[in-house]
Amino acid sequence: MIAEIISIGEELLIGQTVNTNAAWLSRNLNTVGITVRQIVVIADNHDDILNTINQAIQRADLVLTTGGLGPTRDDITKKALCELFDSKLVENQTVMLDNQHFFEKRGFELTELNKLQALVPDKAQIIRNPYGTAPGLWFEHNNTILISMPGVPFEMQHMMTDGILPALKNRVKEYHIIHRTVLTQGIGESFLAEKISGWEDQLPEFITLAYLPSPGIVKLRLSGKGPDKEIIEKTIETQVEQLHTIIPEYIWGYDDQVMEELIGKMLAERSATVCTAESCTGGYISHKLTSVPGSSAYYKGSVIAYSNQAKQQLLSVDPEILQTYGAVSQEVVEVMARNSLKLFDADYSMAVSGIAGPSGGTDTKPVGTVWIAVANNQKIVSKVYSFGDTRERNIIRAGIAAMGMLKELIE
Amino acid sequence: MIAEIISIGEELLIGQTVNTNAAWLSRNLNTVGITVRQIVVIADNHDDILNTINQAIQRADLVLTTGGLGPTRDDITKKALCELFDSKLVENQTVMLDNQHFFEKRGFELTELNKLQALVPDKAQIIRNPYGTAPGLWFEHNNTILISMPGVPFEMQHMMTDGILPALKNRVKEYHIIHRTVLTQGIGESFLAEKISGWEDQLPEFITLAYLPSPGIVKLRLSGKGPDKEIIEKTIETQVEQLHTIIPEYIWGYDDQVMEELIGKMLAERSATVCTAESCTGGYISHKLTSVPGSSAYYKGSVIAYSNQAKQQLLSVDPEILQTYGAVSQEVVEVMARNSLKLFDADYSMAVSGIAGPSGGTDTKPVGTVWIAVANNQKIVSKVYSFGDTRERNIIRAGIAAMGMLKELIE
Repeated sequence: MIAEIISIGEELLIGQTVNTNAAWLSRNLNTVGITVRQIVVIADNHDDILNTINQAIQRADLVLTTGGLGPTRDDITKKALCELFDSKLVENQTVMLDNQHFFEKRGFELTELNKLQALVPDKAQIIRNPYGTAPGLWFEHNNTILISMPGVPFEMQHMMTDGILPALKNRVKEYHIIHRTVLTQGIGESFLAEKISGWEDQLPEFITLAYLPSPGIVKLRLSGKGPDKEIIEKTIETQVEQLHTIIPEYIWGYDDQVMEELIGKMLAERSATVCTAESCTGGYISHKLTSVPGSSAYYKGSVIAYSNQAKQQLLSVDPEILQTYGAVSQEVVEVMARNSLKLFDADYSMAVSGIAGPSGGTDTKPVGTVWIAVANNQKIVSKVYSFGDTRERNIIRAGIAAMGMLKELIE
Repeated sequence: MIAEIISIGEELLIGQTVNTNAAWLSRNLNTVGITVRQIVVIADNHDDILNTINQAIQRADLVLTTGGLGPTRDDITKKALCELFDSKLVENQTVMLDNQHFFEKRGFELTELNKLQALVPDKAQIIRNPYGTAPGLWFEHNNTILISMPGVPFEMQHMMTDGILPALKNRVKEYHIIHRTVLTQGIGESFLAEKISGWEDQLPEFITLAYLPSPGIVKLRLSGKGPDKEIIEKTIETQVEQLHTIIPEYIWGYDDQVMEELIGKMLAERSATVCTAESCTGGYISHKLTSVPGSSAYYKGSVIAYSNQAKQQLLSVDPEILQTYGAVSQEVVEVMARNSLKLFDADYSMAVSGIAGPSGGTDTKPVGTVWIAVANNQKIVSKVYSFGDTRERNIIRAGIAAMGMLKELIE
């Protein structure tokens, strides 16, 4: 099945918003065997919407649109769809009740503007939207499916995952697009490429490899396409196993796994707890750990000690140590790790102190210098890193490195 | 001048890469008065490239393509461009020397593959690429300009900024595109739309309004286009002033401002300091505050007290209060705010305790219930919120709400 995506919204054409919706849709359509051939971005303009959809439904088996369905007046997609499919707007009771309930739950009455959301084209099936007031619309026309969804990423993603993707999967002929991503940490892209070049050369022709670098992590993505799911899966599996024998020390996960989830799982399995003592990461590690549902089972808390005063007072770092070695030092970070462990009565701790930048660097400790310590009651491991010049990336890379070190310590 | 952007590359169609190039280009074309009407994403496929470019040059004054110029696949885009413009490939000495120099500087010899980069269509002007080996190509055909650039963001951006944008600016007739975004917080999209509908109705025709909702924040974007820069600017300014008289309590900033920067600026101006005591936000507010360069000047630190034990031990919350009112209560959050203020010797504090979900909700305190307190040495303000069902969004919305409350207290 060949799909086209139409993203509607002027914010995308003036560069105010990056089109993450199209990327999300492409990735998820692939998982049910649907190939995306084209993505078009247009404004909330009646003629452009009409013409672009009209062309797309003639070329593709499936057309997905996002945006232009909100309650405010800049949204005109619904009208264009009515013209295109010779349909008229009628009030839909399910949507009306859903939206009444949506507002009641939040202690509000349904506004006049939002009542309009219940008007839907009579030739469309509606797709309910539990997280907003604009329903999705599903049209079928000369063997082409057109699905129109709101542009709010969160609402669109839930509609897709809960209803649309399973329904599409049932309609797709036997064809498979399989991706497997190997997550590595602790090695740069070009060094990794050299290490695995022999393996890369022998990959079968129907398997493609892509490198996806992001701060602190390089992802390797293997993709295979074809009618025989088993052959593709088996081949990818064998290749990943071979890769694992070449770089076992750098692989920490697969596919959409994130390190904070992996850490959480490892801790939960051992009924162990964790805390952090952060300086330059400023709560980033704590935020990542607590972004995982259920993290209260193993996450105890953190001290974010940005100032020396806070390091002394909350983490009992000796002022003399701070004076002698400086806040960014092995000595300080080890005291932070050890004392936070006691403070929170936790089994493991991570401590970070560094210079995130852009200012604060010196000749001996330039911007990007970060000391990290991980500890349990028996052992403490500390290491210094030299990251880069960019504050945001330094914070992320320090977080990934700290979690990588904790993972090793737990193992 | 009307432009279309064509992004070439399969990584964009499988969702492996988000199309940040198109957003960057749109934003920068706007600054020289060029409107982007359409963005199309296609694969490295000869027919798709040929057809898409062919259609675009018939509609637009300017067509920009990115991608498909790398050393391994350059014959696809370059060949398609030769066909389209009845051109043939010839060796370009400037490119050959640039690339020799490029490799020498890095201690390598020019590879055979990279020598091919010096072959360019004879009807194109080349745009030199100081950061890579693929030159840009500039064609002119029946009053339409076509510019083909590599897809590596850094290389493309330098070509644009250094040569292409200034050249385009000279070609654009006196025409201006001006955007102004008003940032609101504390009111949902549809309620906001009702409140300002009278103002919206009286907007002059050459000014358009767009609503851009995201968790906790609704952005209102006013856009004006026309030949007279002063009139557009003046009109937008007047309209924004009028809007401000209608909803003063909801407006907190403009354009690309983020709330953590605003808070930082307000604190720095007053030489005041801040700390946080976080439970359900788990370090998110602290992370946001410290993501701002120079935040060490006003940010003291945080206690992330996820467990009751940590609330008692680090923030001296009386166990009896925890027992009587529960961790998610006005009483607890006010103690957290007051005691963190003392602990960090800060001028302001924010304290948050709530149920982020997905579990932990009760009948009286469902998921999404969040108590927030902000304090200084004279005053404490606390408020309860009912956010939604989603952990990630609840954390973000609580962070925005806490910063909004702090902003009011500082003012």
